[in-house]
Amino acid sequence: AYQRLTHDFFMPEKLREDLQKKAEATLQVMPNSQLPTLDNYHTLVALDTSHHKSATVFGFPGWVYKATSSKNGKMYCLRRLEGYRLTNENAIRSVKDWRRVDSGTVVSVIDAFTTRAFGDSSLIFVTDYFPLSKTLVEHHFTSTNRFGHRTSTNVPEKVLWGYISQIGSAIKSVHSAKLAVRCMDPSKVILTDKSRIRFSACSILDVVQYEAQRPLAELQQEDFLHFGKLILSIATNNLAPNQAMKAAVDQLGRTYSPELKETVTWLLTPTQPPAAVKSIDDFISGISAHLVSAFDSSLHTQDTLTSELSRELENGRLFRLIAKLGTINERPEYDGDRNWSENGERYMLKLFRDYVFHQVDAEGRPVVGLGHILSCLNKLDAGVEEKISLVSRDEQNVFVVSYRELKKLVNGAFGDLMKGPGKGRY
Amino acid sequence: AYQRLTHDFFMPEKLREDLQKKAEATLQVMPNSQLPTLDNYHTLVALDTSHHKSATVFGFPGWVYKATSSKNGKMYCLRRLEGYRLTNENAIRSVKDWRRVDSGTVVSVIDAFTTRAFGDSSLIFVTDYFPLSKTLVEHHFTSTNRFGHRTSTNVPEKVLWGYISQIGSAIKSVHSAKLAVRCMDPSKVILTDKSRIRFSACSILDVVQYEAQRPLAELQQEDFLHFGKLILSIATNNLAPNQAMKAAVDQLGRTYSPELKETVTWLLTPTQPPAAVKSIDDFISGISAHLVSAFDSSLHTQDTLTSELSRELENGRLFRLIAKLGTINERPEYDGDRNWSENGERYMLKLFRDYVFHQVDAEGRPVVGLGHILSCLNKLDAGVEEKISLVSRDEQNVFVVSYRELKKLVNGAFGDLMKGPGKGRY
Ligand SMILES: Nc1ncnc2c1ncn2[C@@H]1O[C@H](COP(=O)(O)OP(=O)(O)OP(=O)(O)O)[C@@H](O)[C@H]1O
Ligand SMILES: Nc1ncnc2c1ncn2[C@@H]1O[C@H](COP(=O)(O)OP(=O)(O)OP(=O)(O)O)[C@@H](O)[C@H]1O
Ligand SMILES: [Mg+2]
Ligand SMILES: [Mg+2]
Repeated sequence: AYQRLTHDFFMPEKLREDLQKKAEATLQVMPNSQLPTLDNYHTLVALDTSHHKSATVFGFPGWVYKATSSKNGKMYCLRRLEGYRLTNENAIRSVKDWRRVDSGTVVSVIDAFTTRAFGDSSLIFVTDYFPLSKTLVEHHFTSTNRFGHRTSTNVPEKVLWGYISQIGSAIKSVHSAKLAVRCMDPSKVILTDKSRIRFSACSILDVVQYEAQRPLAELQQEDFLHFGKLILSIATNNLAPNQAMKAAVDQLGRTYSPELKETVTWLLTPTQPPAAVKSIDDFISGISAHLVSAFDSSLHTQDTLTSELSRELENGRLFRLIAKLGTINERPEYDGDRNWSENGERYMLKLFRDYVFHQVDAEGRPVVGLGHILSCLNKLDAGVEEKISLVSRDEQNVFVVSYRELKKLVNGAFGDLMKGPGKGRY
Repeated sequence: AYQRLTHDFFMPEKLREDLQKKAEATLQVMPNSQLPTLDNYHTLVALDTSHHKSATVFGFPGWVYKATSSKNGKMYCLRRLEGYRLTNENAIRSVKDWRRVDSGTVVSVIDAFTTRAFGDSSLIFVTDYFPLSKTLVEHHFTSTNRFGHRTSTNVPEKVLWGYISQIGSAIKSVHSAKLAVRCMDPSKVILTDKSRIRFSACSILDVVQYEAQRPLAELQQEDFLHFGKLILSIATNNLAPNQAMKAAVDQLGRTYSPELKETVTWLLTPTQPPAAVKSIDDFISGISAHLVSAFDSSLHTQDTLTSELSRELENGRLFRLIAKLGTINERPEYDGDRNWSENGERYMLKLFRDYVFHQVDAEGRPVVGLGHILSCLNKLDAGVEEKISLVSRDEQNVFVVSYRELKKLVNGAFGDLMKGPGKGRY
């Protein structure tokens, strides 16, 4: 059971269904949207479903949208801070430093700009978009029981170590780039796949609190404290552990291993002189036993994804083949062409199409099954030697032909078509 | 450039092409094979391309095959040790202990048995099969220059740390399961994907040297030595560093960082009392900075694979839709059916088929492009409101119809077909 859990760690139960839903969410648009078009981004869709405007995290009411870039057609996430007025151009320029950070646990920051398109003065942050992601607040703090009361089921320790490993890895990337995460509020850490988390609000406080000019070393040390509070919140199902930190840590100790308690305590405790500062390298070395197991989980997930992808690539190949067949057969402009007439060589392709798609059983009723179609197409694609009997529609003629010969015919006919004006790629 | 490298770490340059080649290799069979069928495994294909019989690693000449299980139709890898005689039933039973190990860096051991099917007494190990894998010897020690001399290009340090992280993770899994890897010969570590390595010969020495009954603790300590030698071999391009270990370590120190040299030295140096034994936990904590970067690479790879998979799932969905269309249209048994005649409602589907596959340009020449087909099918699948004009073949009639209406027609026609006897799944 333990091993199974390891395997499934990063992998949703219903991978395909999950990806399908994400594809739908990505494409979804709002029919009568009142949202404006910004310079390079159009078709905005609000991702904020809770309708409260809270200004707690950044000091400005905030909104989140997905939008399409008119430069490359890709989808991005826009975060808008309402009523922000830029006083120093350098503030917004600081965002470009985040291009140095390339971590699987940090949502990439693409750009930031101010706009009046919403009828006010707004600050916009553009980041990568992750369809159907949820914040850790939405994921861990909103389950309700059938009486509508919030229930607090304990998060499995293994999940917590997975978060800790990912966050450790993110902080390592950020601190190495001479930056600080600054915002680790559970509402600004998003879950984008099973057990996969990402910091979604990097660079924002760098801009909004630019004037404060706090030293980097101080901000980096504060990251450890934010980290500790984040884990403590999730582990104790308590969004405001600040008020009674000591009690929360004790509570954590009753539910989880001493090692987890020690780790969180280390993060929360300010360094005493002479120990100068905390370093992310020390932290990572301390959690290495858990890191190695997260690494192994990730390798397993990589393997599963690779084998799913191989399977799907087969489908893609067959799709192109079937599209080819569809393009060749029954073209009206061939109606008078001898090649396609009952004694021309391409007549065979017509009969093959019937053979693939129009099988009937002994009573003449249609046989509808993807299995037969798949197997015919696979053999055609491979051009195997196997022979099949193609029967003319009037049942007067039977042609015995190998898939190899059919493959030649298909390529020949398609090659002729391609000599036409609209050369496409198959 | 550094960041780029991290990203590509586990990801082949041409992912799709690579997977396609692996799928072909998996399916490939030998036409006139003389190889026998074993109890549960048939269609053996030799994977050993070098035709020497070496008995150095296990003490018996060995052969490697892929084979199909008659139990589940899956492909496995069989390793045959020629001329092995089982004297103690417990020896072969020890293999089942390996079921406890579930590591992304250990090829899973499925079974072991003896057979006379080859005309001798052979011992067979059944493991997972990884198409087109190469041994580290084949990968790192066989590049030759244009004069046929072996060239030794240095393996990038980042690749070595990737190997070290994976092997550390594998040893952790194996030692936790109260086993030892025992065989880390570079010819028995296989490369199955870009930078992904796996121990391919676990459990073999447990059986073959069963009688020696060496204590586990001793074997586990020996694993560190094997580990050190393996890395030293690859780093110095020297398959037999045993002869001059000290010189090889010095050579390594000239090409790579002091940290790598220290790591290898630690592995190679026997512990001096009072320091009792080496532990894999200590090792992992020592390399944690590299482990965290391998972890992040793996998360990035996971992301890339997931997005490739989403893209392919789209293709799969369209393949099913196009197969459906093919099944419906032009069925000979509908030739007299009023519904499909020029004024029946299904006539529209015939014209739609022409619209999708048989576009012509202003001069009447065929337009052949996957783009048009894809876009039509996507709209059909979504059933969008967009209207198109379908023109009859004689150009006398034009029907204006929305994709939504067409979708209804397709589902209706297909539903009717499904009432036939061969109910398949689409
Ligand atoms: N990069 C992103 N891609 C896709 N969705 C995102 C991204 N970042 C955030 N979201 C989603 O947008 C929604 C709103 O995010 P937001 O940060 O406003 O959370 P919130 O709970 O409304 O917090 P607040 O009260 O601070 O506004 C959440 O569901 C979140 O998962
Ligand atoms: N589990 C596996 N799946 C697929 N291929 C494998 C597997 N294990 C080994 N192979 C491949 O089989 C081939 C032969 O392996 P083998 O261990 O015999 O190597 P070798 O170089 O011939 O060494 P030796 O001299 O000891 O026989 C190699 O190309 C190797 O990559
Ligand atoms: Mg919000
Ligand atoms: Mg061999």
